[in-house]
Amino acid sequence: MDEFGLIARYFAPLAGEGAEGLTDDAAELGGMLMTKDVLVEGVHFLKTDPLDLVARKALRVNRSDLIAKGARPETYALGLVWPQDTQESDIAAFSTGLWAEQKECGLALLGGDTTRGAQTVVSVTMFGRPLGPRITRAGGEPGQGLYVTGNIGDGLLGLEAAKGSPSADDEEAMPYRLPSVPSGAEELVARFASASLDVSDGLVADARHMAEASKLRLVIDVDRVPFSAAGMEARRAGRLAELLGGGDDYQTLFLSGAEEKELQQEAHRLGLRLSHIGRAEEGEGVGLLMRGTPWKADIKGYNHFA
Amino acid sequence: MDEFGLIARYFAPLAGEGAEGLTDDAAELGGMLMTKDVLVEGVHFLKTDPLDLVARKALRVNRSDLIAKGARPETYALGLVWPQDTQESDIAAFSTGLWAEQKECGLALLGGDTTRGAQTVVSVTMFGRPLGPRITRAGGEPGQGLYVTGNIGDGLLGLEAAKGSPSADDEEAMPYRLPSVPSGAEELVARFASASLDVSDGLVADARHMAEASKLRLVIDVDRVPFSAAGMEARRAGRLAELLGGGDDYQTLFLSGAEEKELQQEAHRLGLRLSHIGRAEEGEGVGLLMRGTPWKADIKGYNHFA
Repeated sequence: MDEFGLIARYFAPLAGEGAEGLTDDAAELGGMLMTKDVLVEGVHFLKTDPLDLVARKALRVNRSDLIAKGARPETYALGLVWPQDTQESDIAAFSTGLWAEQKECGLALLGGDTTRGAQTVVSVTMFGRPLGPRITRAGGEPGQGLYVTGNIGDGLLGLEAAKGSPSADDEEAMPYRLPSVPSGAEELVARFASASLDVSDGLVADARHMAEASKLRLVIDVDRVPFSAAGMEARRAGRLAELLGGGDDYQTLFLSGAEEKELQQEAHRLGLRLSHIGRAEEGEGVGLLMRGTPWKADIKGYNHFA
Repeated sequence: MDEFGLIARYFAPLAGEGAEGLTDDAAELGGMLMTKDVLVEGVHFLKTDPLDLVARKALRVNRSDLIAKGARPETYALGLVWPQDTQESDIAAFSTGLWAEQKECGLALLGGDTTRGAQTVVSVTMFGRPLGPRITRAGGEPGQGLYVTGNIGDGLLGLEAAKGSPSADDEEAMPYRLPSVPSGAEELVARFASASLDVSDGLVADARHMAEASKLRLVIDVDRVPFSAAGMEARRAGRLAELLGGGDDYQTLFLSGAEEKELQQEAHRLGLRLSHIGRAEEGEGVGLLMRGTPWKADIKGYNHFA
């Protein structure tokens, strides 16, 4: 049974008010939205990744969830497990990373717990202020446009670079070690989105999650999916399916019935790259188009629990 | 550097409004109180402990923090790390434990995250509704009485039993595997306490924390410290210092200027054992009295981070 099956079977029946049956990325609590993402050494980051970047990544993957729900991240609680060989300098580096991230986006630490264990675990619970009514994965309508912020596939390419190079300042590894999150996109989502989530398991896998929750079919025009220069190069090298399936991008994917021009103006004001990559229609699942015709590709999502 | 030193140096400077500089057991968030305790296999529970009890214990140690702050536990978020050899039946057992605990105390699950790792980690963030103004470790006054709920030392004796017997239904191991928390004591705290915390590191160690935060000296009359039948037996066997230093009791320790009769009536109504074990006076640290005279004993607290 995979992560989603286990959650549906063993944890969803325990969910209370505001939890949406654990089907969304965030829950309501006293007027705030809450999300929780746990990062484990060797699963979500490499033992060789610099700890200041691990700290920042732990905050970013949680920021990403809140941003995609139309909420502005404000505070967080931190649970830390450190292995026995952890040095005080490691904890100092981690703290420096938290500080840098807090300064960049106005977050503050609310509380937490620190203990010992076999490997480094960073458990973040983050709270954000919703900028409008709650936006979930459901709520999309046929005919709406499908939009994504930033670039897709850089997380996968960054992971490959990080595995090959423990060097802390490897620029190619940065998109994995310190993913770019679309700061400000919570405003776009709150004003314009009908359904939204963050792309963490891979573009196509997460589009499937949204299609299922919204009871729609999502059609993605792969020629419009945004790539960085490194992504374009990988695409030319025949790795398109991998880029569309790779995880750790932490961009916001949403459906909107607004005029694209209005969305682009707002994205420009926020300093965000926004790409109109497809549309919603009646049906189910995700379809891919290449040069206007259906493209068959076996694209799996990244599964941290596998 | 110990856990408290690391927190003060590397994490307290990151704390925001409501966090009390990370000096208390809970933080304020949108009118709720929040606490976070992480349980790690081999540190906070044994690999042989039944997983339904591990689940319940994870909730109880967090309930304990909120109760001691005068807040009624309502909801929680759950971060889970499972090792590769985890079976679906393990997760089912864990879920059963959560369910039993939720039913017993009216909790509900709000959200969470599930992933893989080297060892089982249970990270709980719990939210409670304050029944009155915020009660912290500080706020005690000279002349007030020192009170504790339940019994002291059973956590230590339960741990010894659990280490010796992996048997799931060992009654002697139960105080460690499923600590008794003083459900309802949040009402006592909210109405009567000036300073309060939960006894998790050991009675004397936690009294020291309260003395330091309240800038007081706490004097404990060891003849009035409450023990179970097993605790009395251990005391007679010359293990008093160990009982006063052992962790994992999860009782509420508080200072109050109220009449003891009124406190005892309320405790009786709530079905709680309440013991008047000492008093606050000017000064610092913790003093122990035995048969009315100072008792010198080297009592260390339990340190999960050591």
